[in-house]
Amino acid sequence: MAEPSDLLIPIAISARHAHLCRRTIDVLFGPGYQLQPRNPLKQVGQFAAQETVALLGPHARIENVRVLGPPRSENQIEISHSDEMALGLHAPLRLSGDLQDTPGVTLEGPLGRVPLMGGLVRALRHIHMSPADAVRLGVHDHEIVRVAIDGARPVVFGNVMIRVGEDYRLELHLDTDEGNAAGVEAGTTARMFRA
Amino acid sequence: MAEPSDLLIPIAISARHAHLCRRTIDVLFGPGYQLQPRNPLKQVGQFAAQETVALLGPHARIENVRVLGPPRSENQIEISHSDEMALGLHAPLRLSGDLQDTPGVTLEGPLGRVPLMGGLVRALRHIHMSPADAVRLGVHDHEIVRVAIDGARPVVFGNVMIRVGEDYRLELHLDTDEGNAAGVEAGTTARMFRA
Repeated sequence: MAEPSDLLIPIAISARHAHLCRRTIDVLFGPGYQLQPRNPLKQVGQFAAQETVALLGPHARIENVRVLGPPRSENQIEISHSDEMALGLHAPLRLSGDLQDTPGVTLEGPLGRVPLMGGLVRALRHIHMSPADAVRLGVHDHEIVRVAIDGARPVVFGNVMIRVGEDYRLELHLDTDEGNAAGVEAGTTARMFRA
Repeated sequence: MAEPSDLLIPIAISARHAHLCRRTIDVLFGPGYQLQPRNPLKQVGQFAAQETVALLGPHARIENVRVLGPPRSENQIEISHSDEMALGLHAPLRLSGDLQDTPGVTLEGPLGRVPLMGGLVRALRHIHMSPADAVRLGVHDHEIVRVAIDGARPVVFGNVMIRVGEDYRLELHLDTDEGNAAGVEAGTTARMFRA
C-alpha cells in the first residue's frame, strides 16, 4: 500500500512544441538534416533540439516553437488552449500518438513551409511512470486519476491519465495554461489520488 | 438548505485590466478626460471603457490592456501569472483593494506615461454575490470555498473567496490562466462547495 509521501509526483510543464517526421525535417531544415540536441528531457532518449519552427494559423503566427527529438514517424504539434485561440485553430485533446481526425497547421522553418494535414493537438494531461512505480503507486496503465497541487492557489486536476512504460520516469505533464493556473514553479510536486 | 442545482455559479474570465485613478487618467489621456463606456459589466455600475493602456515591464510591454470604469481612488492593475512572467515583474495575489506593498508598473497612454509605485496584482479568485444569494447558498462574506468546473478537463479550484455586497451579482471571477486551464467557454458554470 502506498504511503501518502510516496504519491508526490514531480511536474514538468510542456510548453508548445513540435515532434517532426523525417520528411518534414527535410523540407524545413534541409535533406538529411540532423536535429541538434540542446538539452535532454527526463524521459529516456528524448531531447529538446536547438531547432525551432513557426506555426502559421489564420489569426496569428507563433514563433520559436521548440522541436523535440528524436524524429517520430508522424508529425505531432502540441499547443495549449491559449495557443489555439491565438492561432484561430481548434486542437482536440488527445493522448500522444492518437492523431486520427486532428486538424493541421502550417509549419515554417528556415528552408520552407509544410502545410500539415493533421497532427495539431492539445495533450491530455498524464503521468509517465515505470512498471515498478505503477506497482508502488497501485495504479495501472491508462487508469484515470486526479492530482492536487497545493499552494496559495490550490488546484485539483481531474482526468489525468496514467501512462506506464519501461523507459518512463515518474513525471506529471501539464501544459502551460495548467501550470500557470496552479502556480507551478521549479520543484513543485503534485499529490496523486484515485479518481 | 441549498439544493445542488442552486450552487451553479456563472463564470466571468477577467482578462488583464486596469482600474485607474483620476490623476492617472489626467496624465495618460488628458486633464479631466472622461472614460468612454464600451460595454457594461455584470457588476452594477462597472463598465469596460473604450480606452486601453500599455504596461511596460523590464522584459516586455503588453499592449491594449483594457481600462475599466468608473475611476477608483487608487490605481489597480490586474494581470495573470503568464503576464507577470512576460513582463518580468512579480505581482502578488491580492484581494481587490488590498494594495499595500504591491509593486508598480509603468503605464503608457496616448498622452504620457505614469510609473506607478504600486498597484500591480494578480486577483485572488472570488465569487461575487448579494446578501440574499449568500443566505441561499449558506456562505458568508470572506468565506473560502472550492469550485468545480466539469468537462473534458475537470478542475477543482481551492481558495476561492466569497465576496458579499448589496450591489454584487452572482459571478465567479477567474483569470485567463485559470479559465484556459479549465476550458471555460461562454455559458460554462461552476459548482460551489464548502472547503
